[in-house]
Amino acid sequence: MIGVYLVGLKIPENVGFVARVMKNFGFKELYIYDCRVTVKSFKTASHAKDILRNAKVLKGFDEILDHVNMLVGTTGVTACRQERYVRKPVFSPEELRAFLDGKSGKVAIAFGREDYGLFNEEIELCHMVVTIPTNPEYPVMNVSHAVAVLLYELSKGKYGLEDKNIVKARDIENLVENFERLMRAVWYPKHRIERTKIALRRILGRSLITRRELTVIHGIITKAITYIEHLKEK
Amino acid sequence: MIGVYLVGLKIPENVGFVARVMKNFGFKELYIYDCRVTVKSFKTASHAKDILRNAKVLKGFDEILDHVNMLVGTTGVTACRQERYVRKPVFSPEELRAFLDGKSGKVAIAFGREDYGLFNEEIELCHMVVTIPTNPEYPVMNVSHAVAVLLYELSKGKYGLEDKNIVKARDIENLVENFERLMRAVWYPKHRIERTKIALRRILGRSLITRRELTVIHGIITKAITYIEHLKEK
Repeated sequence: MIGVYLVGLKIPENVGFVARVMKNFGFKELYIYDCRVTVKSFKTASHAKDILRNAKVLKGFDEILDHVNMLVGTTGVTACRQERYVRKPVFSPEELRAFLDGKSGKVAIAFGREDYGLFNEEIELCHMVVTIPTNPEYPVMNVSHAVAVLLYELSKGKYGLEDKNIVKARDIENLVENFERLMRAVWYPKHRIERTKIALRRILGRSLITRRELTVIHGIITKAITYIEHLKEK
Repeated sequence: MIGVYLVGLKIPENVGFVARVMKNFGFKELYIYDCRVTVKSFKTASHAKDILRNAKVLKGFDEILDHVNMLVGTTGVTACRQERYVRKPVFSPEELRAFLDGKSGKVAIAFGREDYGLFNEEIELCHMVVTIPTNPEYPVMNVSHAVAVLLYELSKGKYGLEDKNIVKARDIENLVENFERLMRAVWYPKHRIERTKIALRRILGRSLITRRELTVIHGIITKAITYIEHLKEK
């Protein structure tokens, strides 16, 4: 089940256009954080007003982690060059489709502000990053057209329904924090902690792991931390 | 070389959005017939105002035949069901890309009115018909999003430049008319003439034939007509 997550859109028409293309390609789940939704949005939504009405309005960017198993961020081509690791590896829409094809679980694709896109702190929380290959002369697409292209590509694939066995993105976040505790306990170089967390988050997020698997990994890390603390006390 | 042909658009913003997605995917040639282009179009074109400014404004739908080698029409899914032969065979964006991949010549993709799309008489003049697979519950896409999806798909392929050896769509039209003269000369069933012309037009259009080939076929048909008339006179 694939949903769309709109973040910080300021032009109300764009939110409506997104609802319309979602319905055009058979997608239903819309999450909204910090967007301007007005009568104009309902006008451009045309016959997809139901999608707008049923949209889940979130209070913080990271609230999405409670709703889905995997979070995919989108980024413009230019942004890729500026970042060293936050926006790498970056997938094409076709690669994302191939990756998700045949998988189960709830996935949200996040689209950012008309001017700045998603902030780095938001992209860091994503498990995959995707970009639409565009003309370097003018790579900046209108957000609703970017959604249209991505949903068109994803509509070629087949996806399973929600799977209760797969852990929520929030659970992965907790596991990443447990890894951080281990890193700090063993004096892992501080300046590498952030990027290591991003790598861990992406590996674990992409794996769509089950509750059982999560418990196993949590167990190892927690055991290691406890033992290290035990040794230190001596 | 692939261009976009906008027909009868009434919402000025849509024309601008189309120019923008064209530039996003590296397409330049815009043809316009009977569209409302205003300051609003230039606003939504954003950094693609040059594409709008350089657009060729045509005086009749069929004037496009003088500019390109092949004309592709687009149609919504619902429209397909109503027609028996005008909108058949219909290609998917992927099939169109695969067909055009590696070929030379000027091709225009025509997009019709926000409400009615392309009229049957316009679709009849096209050499191929393409449709974007959408949700039957709400198949009607905004025209600029349809352009975005199609250009995204076509941007995956590689196309040659203009090839002066390939005949213009207008030349094919003249050959089709020559065939019609032959059909009438031999008392071909009148009610089948129209659909036979459409079939001939599509076969010849898709073939991207050269001047030399065109002359050969013209020669056969004209010779046949002359001989038939000669026999009749006896």
